[in-house]
Amino acid sequence: MAIRVLGLDGDDTLWHSETRFHFTQGEFRDLIKRFTPDAEVDARLAQTEMRNLSIYGYGVKSFTLSMLETAIELTGARISAADLDVIIGWGKRMLSQPTELLDGVEATLRQVAPSYDLILITKGDLFDQESKLARSGLGELFFGVEILTEKNPESYRGVFRRRGIRPEEFVMVGNSLRSDIVPVVGLGGRAVHIPYQVTWQHEHVPDDELPQHGWRRIERIAELPAVLDEL
Amino acid sequence: MAIRVLGLDGDDTLWHSETRFHFTQGEFRDLIKRFTPDAEVDARLAQTEMRNLSIYGYGVKSFTLSMLETAIELTGARISAADLDVIIGWGKRMLSQPTELLDGVEATLRQVAPSYDLILITKGDLFDQESKLARSGLGELFFGVEILTEKNPESYRGVFRRRGIRPEEFVMVGNSLRSDIVPVVGLGGRAVHIPYQVTWQHEHVPDDELPQHGWRRIERIAELPAVLDEL
Repeated sequence: MAIRVLGLDGDDTLWHSETRFHFTQGEFRDLIKRFTPDAEVDARLAQTEMRNLSIYGYGVKSFTLSMLETAIELTGARISAADLDVIIGWGKRMLSQPTELLDGVEATLRQVAPSYDLILITKGDLFDQESKLARSGLGELFFGVEILTEKNPESYRGVFRRRGIRPEEFVMVGNSLRSDIVPVVGLGGRAVHIPYQVTWQHEHVPDDELPQHGWRRIERIAELPAVLDEL
Repeated sequence: MAIRVLGLDGDDTLWHSETRFHFTQGEFRDLIKRFTPDAEVDARLAQTEMRNLSIYGYGVKSFTLSMLETAIELTGARISAADLDVIIGWGKRMLSQPTELLDGVEATLRQVAPSYDLILITKGDLFDQESKLARSGLGELFFGVEILTEKNPESYRGVFRRRGIRPEEFVMVGNSLRSDIVPVVGLGGRAVHIPYQVTWQHEHVPDDELPQHGWRRIERIAELPAVLDEL
């Protein structure tokens, strides 16, 4: 069936996101190691984030709160308020940085926009994502925007229902096997995977849980128009 | 024109919200006064919140981060990490509390649901609002859910467009003149104002900026079915 609607993930598909978390996490590691040189900072932060996910959800504000909590825990509350204020500042910096598009994004979207309805389908913090989209300059290219708390079969089914989309006419494009590829292919849609240079551990999928058919992998978004013609 | 769609605000219209912020803010005031008895805690926190609104948006996570920042500022960073951890805990408590419905909400919604399409239209943090709705037990009564970063003419117009609603067939019900009444009446819709016991300062509207017609005020949601018949 002909493709009518193209779903596009935002973070690490259209614009850089994970590298910013990595950068800040590097600063965080250095700060904490001044207090406790042997602390397993990254592992403990990841644990805090996972523990808080059901209370905070995704996004920079959640990440900032989890950094603060981890810093207090790992230093036995010896860290100063001034240092914690620095962490709060990192969160604000992340939220205020310009949206940095990946190579080829704008040209590719302009190329495919006349042929398909483009819908940005992203998860995370509503305010943060809308703000990033506004700063990206890509807003006018999108027919619609869906910001979801989770990307799973149920939430994609909700998007299809709200927008009158049949799975067979839908292709999802994104960097996360877990969030962009597996649930969409499972519902009978198709998907294009564009790996990003860094993947958040939470998003990994074991090879044997990947669908056999219904999706393709490309290296950069510039290859998207060609692969859509082949699908 | 007959009313077809009913928009309902969530916070302080269907469930308690502002009282929880007030309660936590009281604890916050007591904590800070231990360090600086003369500090104008509430005014400074409100300033921090307003300053951060364009970076953080609304919601409990934003409120928590603004409390932390204000605490550090007002104490000249003399506050301990352990005390700041207590503030982080207050935020988590707010996010985890059961959704406490206002009197008469469930019965009234069940009464009007057969006659109108009910849409929850609320602003704030996506994750937090979805979680509150899930915990409210009211989910099945709603035809749709719209979580907006701001409630203004533009965002209401977006809801009308996405859902094929004509303003004349729409009534918005909420506790905020600024967010629920003024923008909807301005677009040609109608509105019902149900004041809550506490109003966040940010939501106040001077009397002379209120529309002359197109809205009604009731004291409790149980009066809603009767006023809808009159509108």
